[in-house]
Amino acid sequence: MSQSMRRMIFWFEYGSTYTYLTVARIDALAAQAGVVVDWRPFLLGPLLKDRGMAQGPFLGNPPKLDYMWRDLSRRAEAYGLPYRKPSVYPPNTLLTARIGTLAAMQGWCDAFTREVFRLHWTEDIAIGTDDNLRRALTTVGRNPEEVMVAAQSDANKQLLRAATDAAEAMGLFGSPSFTIGDELFWGDDRLEDALAFAQSSGRTTAGQV
Amino acid sequence: MSQSMRRMIFWFEYGSTYTYLTVARIDALAAQAGVVVDWRPFLLGPLLKDRGMAQGPFLGNPPKLDYMWRDLSRRAEAYGLPYRKPSVYPPNTLLTARIGTLAAMQGWCDAFTREVFRLHWTEDIAIGTDDNLRRALTTVGRNPEEVMVAAQSDANKQLLRAATDAAEAMGLFGSPSFTIGDELFWGDDRLEDALAFAQSSGRTTAGQV
Repeated sequence: MSQSMRRMIFWFEYGSTYTYLTVARIDALAAQAGVVVDWRPFLLGPLLKDRGMAQGPFLGNPPKLDYMWRDLSRRAEAYGLPYRKPSVYPPNTLLTARIGTLAAMQGWCDAFTREVFRLHWTEDIAIGTDDNLRRALTTVGRNPEEVMVAAQSDANKQLLRAATDAAEAMGLFGSPSFTIGDELFWGDDRLEDALAFAQSSGRTTAGQV
Repeated sequence: MSQSMRRMIFWFEYGSTYTYLTVARIDALAAQAGVVVDWRPFLLGPLLKDRGMAQGPFLGNPPKLDYMWRDLSRRAEAYGLPYRKPSVYPPNTLLTARIGTLAAMQGWCDAFTREVFRLHWTEDIAIGTDDNLRRALTTVGRNPEEVMVAAQSDANKQLLRAATDAAEAMGLFGSPSFTIGDELFWGDDRLEDALAFAQSSGRTTAGQV
């Protein structure tokens, strides 16, 4: 079989808790499945706001929020992932998403994002803080000062806005989400299903934003 | 090992779509796990209203609602379950929940509920309609007239209210939910995890409502 590589877009919001599970798992699973993953940060807040929702499903629903933390710690344990409940929730993710967008253009979004989430979820160095960003950038061999300037350029800001608009147009409503063509899968629970679909769907062209 | 039977409470709202998957799967999985399931209908609407929410997560969010239907059909296929998208959504579930409550007291809630869901999800005979209730009751060998009178007694109405209050007090926020002692699992995706927990937790006393 000499088909082109199967591709899947991984859409994510840095402030999404369940996205930690996916960020920590997706590389090994995608490699097993022979699927190339395009990491695509977007902002969930503006997308929800456009649909008349002030926030995600957890903040206005304390029992659901309590359950989320319990469920996350159980899933992390089941997957053998390190887990420490972060003290900051929700984090402010705008600058991180801008850097992730720049990183996706330059090919280092996966490594950067893994480190951002690792710091947040295992060392309680909160996503969005200067400490989190500088450490993650340094770990992946980038110069924090240079990256922060480039990430705040008008062109890069516009790129993140365009990714968010594209997510909205595709009917995304949460993170993590996975698309193969116009087929959508939502949630870390559907990561394996999405990869199986990508694998079985033959040559697929990843959407361009 | 001669421990007492492991027990798990299965809390459900008849109008919940994902609950179909659980209703169709739980008996075989529970038998494999050696866990006794207590079927416990409750009403999700009043519980959400008490928390300031007018409705569940789908109705106000069209892209999420679209995704729900797609995801449900994919899950049904993956599980080998018959599936036909119902024309009624959301169904009116009050009378069905009252009958389910009576049935739970009399030991035939599982058979009745399976048939109610089967009619709704494979023959498009909508939950809450007279046709759905009469057929399901007849199939499980009950007299529809007698059951409907008994289900509308003050005592039985009060029993359903008490179950809903208990669900709220336990921090439930959706259907299906599973509890073992005060450990909560939510969603058809967590059915296997809940049964594994019930199985490993030794003798557990099912909560009384």
